[in-house]
Amino acid sequence: MNIIARYKNVRAYTMELCKPLFLEDYIPQGSVFASPVKWHIAHTTWFFETFLLKNYLKNYKEFHSDFNFLFNSYYNAIGTRTARINRGVMSRPSVEDVHKYRAHVDNAMMLLFDKVALDLIFPLLEIGINHEQQHQELLLTDLKYNFSLNPIHPLYKEGASLVSNENTDAGFVSVSAGVYKVGYEGGGFSFDNEHSRHDVFLRDCIISKSLVTNGEFLQFIHDDGYKRHELWLDEGWSWINQEGIENPLYWKKANGKWFQFSLEGLIPLNEKAQLAHISHYEAAAFSEWKGMRLPTEFEWEVASESFNWGARWEHTSSAYLAYPGYKKPSGAVGEYNGKFMMNQMVLRGASNATPKGHSRRTYRNFFHPNMQWQFAGIRLASDE
Amino acid sequence: MNIIARYKNVRAYTMELCKPLFLEDYIPQGSVFASPVKWHIAHTTWFFETFLLKNYLKNYKEFHSDFNFLFNSYYNAIGTRTARINRGVMSRPSVEDVHKYRAHVDNAMMLLFDKVALDLIFPLLEIGINHEQQHQELLLTDLKYNFSLNPIHPLYKEGASLVSNENTDAGFVSVSAGVYKVGYEGGGFSFDNEHSRHDVFLRDCIISKSLVTNGEFLQFIHDDGYKRHELWLDEGWSWINQEGIENPLYWKKANGKWFQFSLEGLIPLNEKAQLAHISHYEAAAFSEWKGMRLPTEFEWEVASESFNWGARWEHTSSAYLAYPGYKKPSGAVGEYNGKFMMNQMVLRGASNATPKGHSRRTYRNFFHPNMQWQFAGIRLASDE
Amino acid sequence: MNIIARYKNVRAYTMELCKPLFLEDYIPQGSVFASPVKWHIAHTTWFFETFLLKNYLKNYKEFHSDFNFLFNSYYNAIGTRTARINRGVMSRPSVEDVHKYRAHVDNAMMLLFDKVALDLIFPLLEIGINHEQQHQELLLTDLKYNFSLNPIHPLYKEGASLVSNENTDAGFVSVSAGVYKVGYEGGGFSFDNEHSRHDVFLRDCIISKSLVTNGEFLQFIHDDGYKRHELWLDEGWSWINQEGIENPLYWKKANGKWFQFSLEGLIPLNEKAQLAHISHYEAAAFSEWKGMRLPTEFEWEVASESFNWGARWEHTSSAYLAYPGYKKPSGAVGEYNGKFMMNQMVLRGASNATPKGHSRRTYRNFFHPNMQWQFAGIRLASDE
Amino acid sequence: MNIIARYKNVRAYTMELCKPLFLEDYIPQGSVFASPVKWHIAHTTWFFETFLLKNYLKNYKEFHSDFNFLFNSYYNAIGTRTARINRGVMSRPSVEDVHKYRAHVDNAMMLLFDKVALDLIFPLLEIGINHEQQHQELLLTDLKYNFSLNPIHPLYKEGASLVSNENTDAGFVSVSAGVYKVGYEGGGFSFDNEHSRHDVFLRDCIISKSLVTNGEFLQFIHDDGYKRHELWLDEGWSWINQEGIENPLYWKKANGKWFQFSLEGLIPLNEKAQLAHISHYEAAAFSEWKGMRLPTEFEWEVASESFNWGARWEHTSSAYLAYPGYKKPSGAVGEYNGKFMMNQMVLRGASNATPKGHSRRTYRNFFHPNMQWQFAGIRLASDE
Repeated sequence: MNIIARYKNVRAYTMELCKPLFLEDYIPQGSVFASPVKWHIAHTTWFFETFLLKNYLKNYKEFHSDFNFLFNSYYNAIGTRTARINRGVMSRPSVEDVHKYRAHVDNAMMLLFDKVALDLIFPLLEIGINHEQQHQELLLTDLKYNFSLNPIHPLYKEGASLVSNENTDAGFVSVSAGVYKVGYEGGGFSFDNEHSRHDVFLRDCIISKSLVTNGEFLQFIHDDGYKRHELWLDEGWSWINQEGIENPLYWKKANGKWFQFSLEGLIPLNEKAQLAHISHYEAAAFSEWKGMRLPTEFEWEVASESFNWGARWEHTSSAYLAYPGYKKPSGAVGEYNGKFMMNQMVLRGASNATPKGHSRRTYRNFFHPNMQWQFAGIRLASDE
Repeated sequence: MNIIARYKNVRAYTMELCKPLFLEDYIPQGSVFASPVKWHIAHTTWFFETFLLKNYLKNYKEFHSDFNFLFNSYYNAIGTRTARINRGVMSRPSVEDVHKYRAHVDNAMMLLFDKVALDLIFPLLEIGINHEQQHQELLLTDLKYNFSLNPIHPLYKEGASLVSNENTDAGFVSVSAGVYKVGYEGGGFSFDNEHSRHDVFLRDCIISKSLVTNGEFLQFIHDDGYKRHELWLDEGWSWINQEGIENPLYWKKANGKWFQFSLEGLIPLNEKAQLAHISHYEAAAFSEWKGMRLPTEFEWEVASESFNWGARWEHTSSAYLAYPGYKKPSGAVGEYNGKFMMNQMVLRGASNATPKGHSRRTYRNFFHPNMQWQFAGIRLASDE
Repeated sequence: MNIIARYKNVRAYTMELCKPLFLEDYIPQGSVFASPVKWHIAHTTWFFETFLLKNYLKNYKEFHSDFNFLFNSYYNAIGTRTARINRGVMSRPSVEDVHKYRAHVDNAMMLLFDKVALDLIFPLLEIGINHEQQHQELLLTDLKYNFSLNPIHPLYKEGASLVSNENTDAGFVSVSAGVYKVGYEGGGFSFDNEHSRHDVFLRDCIISKSLVTNGEFLQFIHDDGYKRHELWLDEGWSWINQEGIENPLYWKKANGKWFQFSLEGLIPLNEKAQLAHISHYEAAAFSEWKGMRLPTEFEWEVASESFNWGARWEHTSSAYLAYPGYKKPSGAVGEYNGKFMMNQMVLRGASNATPKGHSRRTYRNFFHPNMQWQFAGIRLASDE
Repeated sequence: MNIIARYKNVRAYTMELCKPLFLEDYIPQGSVFASPVKWHIAHTTWFFETFLLKNYLKNYKEFHSDFNFLFNSYYNAIGTRTARINRGVMSRPSVEDVHKYRAHVDNAMMLLFDKVALDLIFPLLEIGINHEQQHQELLLTDLKYNFSLNPIHPLYKEGASLVSNENTDAGFVSVSAGVYKVGYEGGGFSFDNEHSRHDVFLRDCIISKSLVTNGEFLQFIHDDGYKRHELWLDEGWSWINQEGIENPLYWKKANGKWFQFSLEGLIPLNEKAQLAHISHYEAAAFSEWKGMRLPTEFEWEVASESFNWGARWEHTSSAYLAYPGYKKPSGAVGEYNGKFMMNQMVLRGASNATPKGHSRRTYRNFFHPNMQWQFAGIRLASDE
């Protein structure tokens, strides 16, 4: 598919995701990290307007002079912006106006495609498309979080629970000691943080072909996993005790039975389904309890040719840091990834909330170790 | 007007206030103290359902079993409730469902009026009506606050700025030393906190017939009023310094000119209009700067027969405490007022956001001394 | 006793209080409100240096130029000062140096008494003496608090527990409705906040001759007093739940028995002794549970001619506000009392930690309603 | 030197460090991370008592049953403990009693050396000795911090400023691409976090032989280094803006000249001296400004054979994580290092506050990226 078609598809898919929503659902922000739907659909539009239309389309007239302030996420180089915590306060512009904004920008983009050599804008266009895909995933992730704070357990859409499947594979993949190449190589799109491709030395290890299930995690809970300090990182132990964490996010026990909140509302916990919504701290404690460990991001990258992935973002034991030879891009786009390389851990793979075709084996996602709201699970590894 | 007509009018007026709103405007909560419009219109309905329909209408079927949890404000006796800070997260029930809830309750109320002797329900009905009026005022107050956080300065409605008029009167009312009766007496409605009527001894004093204007407050600012510690209460001084307060809420200086955010958006500051949106701390500092003082609530009550009031809630120097002989009502309604008698200061009068006929000379409003979001102003007093 | 002798006595008594201390005990500050012993003995000295010696003793040479910054408590007019929270960080100046500072100032004061007409300095000298007495009480109050955080329950001094006596009186004092004079009048010392003397109208009421005992408060606890929302002010209820308050400060239950931390260490709770270390919130809840109430400060003042007081500071239902005609003194001394007249409640009487002769019937002490560390108790009142 | 002599020397050196102190200096804790001197000298003693005497010396009588609670730092397996923030509140036990505690434990250790085969206790003894050396460094680091909060700039000891020397070397060390062994190997002592020794693949790089000087860092400040967002990690940028950080810790500008607080009090900033007291965030921003980068911990380890180190702990770009094959020791000692492997960055080398012989090329220190109070500096690296 050519990039213009891909642009159209991605833009249309965002609208597709919004179809089941009530107008009211576009507004709330349940936490500083869970942005409103309206913000996601405006911000992704702002990205194309700011980085493509304003720079490359002659005589482009911006939709509204306030929108740069309203819908800039974190680009200091672009100027001041609304405090992140205030995204949910903005009832205006209306959702209808944001749809007009999307249409305005989409029309201008068609003009741009006509007027400008695609080669010139291709790299930024790719980033914009991938950026919107990331926000499609976040839109669902944040929507689930915001809905979860509502005691009446709203339904997003029948059949869209995003509860994962059961494992189909069993056993382990073996990685043999040696020097391996890691990082992106090839002609397709990749983010700056996947570069440069470089050599790493790995030791012998095995990595599970299956993901940890809800049932296995229940055993950890029943074995007092949340009460045994020796299983936890020090700051993880503080975190579960201060926050009163006793189970994965969205799990609730009622009348002796476990339920989980999903995008189809509150449903019984399926013990065979693949676990999600656990933080790095919980993933690490579970691994310790199992007498195993999380894989490093490079072990994962090497082994992932031999197992199925894509149902649950997978925690690794690697901190999110620059690769050798990493250069952040010049200009505002340089703020996309590099400045977040601190206090975060790498996740690999993708989840069933990730748009098709968005991820790849070298893709690096990253979150603070206490974040639970992602569709993230556990794949175990071991030295033997 | 009989009470059934009054019920209908009050309920209709709430809807009237909502007419200019976008659907999106019903949702946001910009602070723990500024509830969403949707919450106000549901909570006032919940009040009638909980205290009247459930107790007095045989076979009343509640609209939805979750709504008691969702729309209880602070009545511990009624059960658990949504955390106040989470009111803005609830996109569901939809605004349409809340309108259905209102219709359901209104219909049932008509049935109740048919079936039950009005005498029996009259006291609670009066409270419910007055309660809804209080929330009509809060709806505007909170809406203004929530809009004010939006950098694009939303318009509520043309002609509805709620900027106050200019003063029409001048000079002072004198109160002569002696014992005066204060507190409510008579056959109309009053809140428990206006009782019991009792004697107080007042000294000679004078109270201004006019309210402080924006222009007078500007002089305070220009005379470094916000920078002179000797004018401020100790906790007021800490407050302005920690929060960076340098002017009344909603005032903004741009290009050397003062503007104020209003329900008609951002408009130039009218220096002759009556000041609003200042906290008790600011009112007290301004009075100190003037070499005068705020009146006590009893001085105000006695003198108010001789001046015009109702444009701006007026700060007093009285703490919000129980009157001699005060008895809080039994049951959940006992939580209406009494439990808030601590750390708050009394305001007297009313404002142009107050529904007609809601206030009276003995009416006591109350806020923490740092709250600025009310339409509150200053009337000066002095011993001489 | 003449004022020079009183000065000497007061200064000596501070040193007397310090005798049982280890040098280490002079340093810690267990909370922003519990200052170190060293700070108390330096600050009281600073007061005489700043308000008397620097203004009235010609050629007075200040002890050390840094001490004004170090030992100013809250006088903005005197200049910047150490943040209150940092008082416990200052190991230097040494305790020995602070003793030298005391000696230096005491010597200069003797010189001042020689050189200057006593009339000229009498008012400030009286304030300085009374100020030091207040800090003598605070020294013990803060020391107890700081010791209480130490798991090994330090002993201050044998026989100095400051546990109160048992009640000797019973029954009630009656106050008859009418206009009464309240506030200070006479030739002795009084603080500005006791003025001006004025008329108040009181209603019929009765006030207990005895103070609430530990045993009576135990009944409140056993009757789930800390778990029944209807007994509590709203902010009191939030406070006990957020802080996990379940009993008066310093009470501990071990092996089914109640103990209390005292200046003699941890000792069994004496049920007949007079209760202390409860906040206004707890005093108000207890009164509510008893079906009675706290007296107002004026009821207390009028009735106190007819009961014994002085064992426990006594909570009242009055907010700490200016009396009619109150004028704060000019200059820095004006910051002594007036700027604290907000969000605090009045206590009347004195406690067995108060130096002899320091208090009087018109004396007004004041604390925030959640403060427990004072030796404060409860005297009940009622309308009938 | 045999291990018994080393034990004696280390224990004596702690006392040596304390000699210049006033008794008052043993008590304060200026921040949760800056423990009191008394706590350091008691806790190091507790370590020997807990891990050696209680386990290996028959009939050992513990000095005081409360001390386990008082002086346990963070070992959950050993039981409950004083909250870290409360270490500065404990005036008791007295410093004298802590010295008695030290003598009691030292005597018992001598007995232990007589009675028990050294082989049996050797590993724990080594940890205890190294542990005390770490606290010797912390004692000075924390003392400096606590003193720095005192506006009178206390002097620890003449000649003990710990300001570093000027650089003696210049130029760069080159590391050639290839597989290198890193981690501890050999017969001496090492911590668990230095294991297991393993292969890493490094790329070509160069590492400076000199450390960044105060003067070089001044240039960064003068070039608006603290004001240019593009130089900073996102959380570093938030940190400097929220905390108002504009220079390294302890630097102060007065009358246009730069000074630094040291253990000799406030002294002029020596521009040629090696920089210290900067956080990882500042180190990373400075490197970015220079167009260079921090070395990884493995580049540092490999290159460090070819440069002088030991004056300033050196920031690296490596997160503090477990090495491949890392096993945390069983029992309470397992809490020594492993549980802190999250949200911290590795420092390599040592500083002039580090006891002689304590560090080695494989030694890993670690701090949160915002901590400034360590004697940490910058050594630059580059790919070319």
